[in-house]
Amino acid sequence: MRIDIPEVRAEVEAAFARYERALVTNDVPVLEELFRDAPETIRYGAAENLYGMEEIRAFRRARPPAGLARSLSRTVITTYGRDFAVANTMFHREGAPGKVGRQSQSWVRFPEGWRVVAAHVSVVPEG
Amino acid sequence: MRIDIPEVRAEVEAAFARYERALVTNDVPVLEELFRDAPETIRYGAAENLYGMEEIRAFRRARPPAGLARSLSRTVITTYGRDFAVANTMFHREGAPGKVGRQSQSWVRFPEGWRVVAAHVSVVPEG
Repeated sequence: MRIDIPEVRAEVEAAFARYERALVTNDVPVLEELFRDAPETIRYGAAENLYGMEEIRAFRRARPPAGLARSLSRTVITTYGRDFAVANTMFHREGAPGKVGRQSQSWVRFPEGWRVVAAHVSVVPEG
Repeated sequence: MRIDIPEVRAEVEAAFARYERALVTNDVPVLEELFRDAPETIRYGAAENLYGMEEIRAFRRARPPAGLARSLSRTVITTYGRDFAVANTMFHREGAPGKVGRQSQSWVRFPEGWRVVAAHVSVVPEG
């Protein structure tokens, strides 16, 4: 199990950056593309528990597009072998002083590309 | 990429169950054993952001052992290939009515066995 093979890590970093751009611009088609379209895909959001891509899609499409801008910190992407990676980051939003967000993603490589198979986002008081 | 190969899934289910037993009994040696001992391992807890096994170990060892009992619901474990899995579950504690916990783990198979490389726990108001 080789960790952080440079070219693998570069691929995941690019996918992660693409997801982040899509998130802050509310580019719903890209957000949907980058999650695996399957009933096993899970996303625990700041206030919602979404099981399966159907629930994830419904949430994305109903989400108000305002106030999504954020700044990331302490981002760590680690790849395990050639087909799996985890991406963890903290984030702050101007509209939420005193709070810090945490975002965890599990990425798997499929024939169609790297896809998130599980994600968890939560917001807590700044420690 | 084969998903949920029965014998692989059984291995991860056993590791997940072992972790859960260790958690509710505060069996710190097992909790430490089941997280990969590496600086890349990350655990976002209900109120803490732990980067690297040193921080995770310090948190475990300082944690009060009371009030850890919980009941799980909507647990989904999915394996991707033979070396990677995600485990997601919700949980309730008697001492926290009206709140629901979410726990996400990413598991990787190493020569020494299945280990958590990233975990995220958060507690939110019941939806």
